[in-house]
Amino acid sequence: MENPVLAEVTRGNVVESRHRGAAIVVDADGAVVFATGDIERPVFPRSAVKALQALPLLESGAADRYGLTEAEIALAVSSHSGEPLHAETSLAMLRKAGREAACLECGAHWPSNEAAARALARSGAEPSALNNNCSGKHAGFVCLSCALDEDPAGYVKAGHPVQQAVRGALETVTGAAHAAERMGTDGCSIPTYAVPLSALALGFARFGTGRGFGPERAKAAARIRAAAAAHPFMVAGTGRFDTRLMGLLGARAFTKTGAEGVYCAALPELGYGIALKCDDGAGRASEVALGALIARFLPMDEATQAAFAPLRQAVLKNWNGIEVGRVRAPQD
Amino acid sequence: MENPVLAEVTRGNVVESRHRGAAIVVDADGAVVFATGDIERPVFPRSAVKALQALPLLESGAADRYGLTEAEIALAVSSHSGEPLHAETSLAMLRKAGREAACLECGAHWPSNEAAARALARSGAEPSALNNNCSGKHAGFVCLSCALDEDPAGYVKAGHPVQQAVRGALETVTGAAHAAERMGTDGCSIPTYAVPLSALALGFARFGTGRGFGPERAKAAARIRAAAAAHPFMVAGTGRFDTRLMGLLGARAFTKTGAEGVYCAALPELGYGIALKCDDGAGRASEVALGALIARFLPMDEATQAAFAPLRQAVLKNWNGIEVGRVRAPQD
Repeated sequence: MENPVLAEVTRGNVVESRHRGAAIVVDADGAVVFATGDIERPVFPRSAVKALQALPLLESGAADRYGLTEAEIALAVSSHSGEPLHAETSLAMLRKAGREAACLECGAHWPSNEAAARALARSGAEPSALNNNCSGKHAGFVCLSCALDEDPAGYVKAGHPVQQAVRGALETVTGAAHAAERMGTDGCSIPTYAVPLSALALGFARFGTGRGFGPERAKAAARIRAAAAAHPFMVAGTGRFDTRLMGLLGARAFTKTGAEGVYCAALPELGYGIALKCDDGAGRASEVALGALIARFLPMDEATQAAFAPLRQAVLKNWNGIEVGRVRAPQD
Repeated sequence: MENPVLAEVTRGNVVESRHRGAAIVVDADGAVVFATGDIERPVFPRSAVKALQALPLLESGAADRYGLTEAEIALAVSSHSGEPLHAETSLAMLRKAGREAACLECGAHWPSNEAAARALARSGAEPSALNNNCSGKHAGFVCLSCALDEDPAGYVKAGHPVQQAVRGALETVTGAAHAAERMGTDGCSIPTYAVPLSALALGFARFGTGRGFGPERAKAAARIRAAAAAHPFMVAGTGRFDTRLMGLLGARAFTKTGAEGVYCAALPELGYGIALKCDDGAGRASEVALGALIARFLPMDEATQAAFAPLRQAVLKNWNGIEVGRVRAPQD
């Protein structure tokens, strides 16, 4: 049972590397529009489901209670690059709930944005948890915890009311059991549960349309989608795939990367949800695989197609800026 | 024709990601000791053949003419982390040939060693070509060019006498044609030629034993192996796989990583050469796959086995330092 090649990497006239994986596109009733590879094997969605994990933040009224802005809601579903605006916005969210950076439990790491990391080093400072790519999501967890009148301490643990609410939302939206025996610990220390790509795609078809949701959840999903479309920088960062893609397509596509080669997306006007994983965990492959799928299904005018081209085929340059190869879907 | 899984990545109780590839172990007569996957498909060896690319530097007499030290010879076969000692040693090599950093044609990039990169940023400086992971190899190319009384300018081009000498050595040692139609441009701008893993393994079996080499080439290979064994830091850098492995095993193993998931190695006492490539280009997978192969064939006492364990199974920790998974060969 072998998964097909989702992306290949060329150098000169030779295919240098190959990335296998599985992908599925479904509508909000769960009808399969497209599928390739083993779409029933459980995979950890990692950060690709942050938008679903943020539903309780809005449904609970926490976002309104603390007056979170649209940009802050976008940051709550982000894997950001740790640029100054990301870190400042995370801190602003925490302060609206009367908290400080010290209550973040995601751990610290250097900004993934090179320029931001260099600038931080030049300033003589060390990175804080605010620079962690998950700090916006965690700030949202802290806001949710405070709105629930729960002590945020330990909010990353599976037994904390915040993670129970998150797990409940994930189970209802995807329709998949989130089983303790398929639980792993994510990079930012919260639980991540392995579920089939088919369930993730269905969850994102529902997220993109509100179909099957009650009115509060449908409204929450629509607010998150609108926030990401209006603030794509907040969802990722300078030069990042999600930021470029949503910057180009706006509300026509909601996309979110996850570690280890996962991507989830919604195409609201088509009612489609998409989920894919590259077996080997490569982000470069999951990006072009998602780009190729979106280009296949979403109608685009010529100008949009041209602007979209680098999102379905990435040019590889060497240290002298010479083009040495490409990352592309095999059919591209 | 599917390659097998060479390494898998776990999270909790779940296999999160899988890396396929091919691997071969041969003796210096070309007899196959072990093989898995498609070992005849041409692959770019990238930096994994730097030791073979450095043979002309020694055979030509250039290394002796400029009085290159053993540490400098080790740096000439390195993919280093751009730490200060690496950069300084590259510059020292160039100056022995009467040249400066400006003649390097590899391009500049930030040190891959995080601490070195932060320190450079804190100092307000920008990286130079000396920090490029290939600067030692390129300094060797410049020395070779000068010893041949050739202008080093353009030494990265396929038609330059330096690259012709390098290509000649690669063809003779591996026994594989290095064809123009299978030429790509490497990260550091020199040509790289796609050849089968079987030929690369044979080349490293010969490199490890001198079998089939004339006396000058055999002596050059022995000097390179001794240099790497004595100066493993020069071949890679702080915490890097090749540095740790050769630091532990000394002259019992010569190993060299290449970009896009390639590894080449020699086990001189067994007369074996090893070559492998992970299809998807992942270095984390090529490392544990090589570690597992070496552990399978090279006898080790109990203490060495214990010290070697992290080289065949890597622990993955998250931003809070919590162990979340492992990278390991499937049989481990």
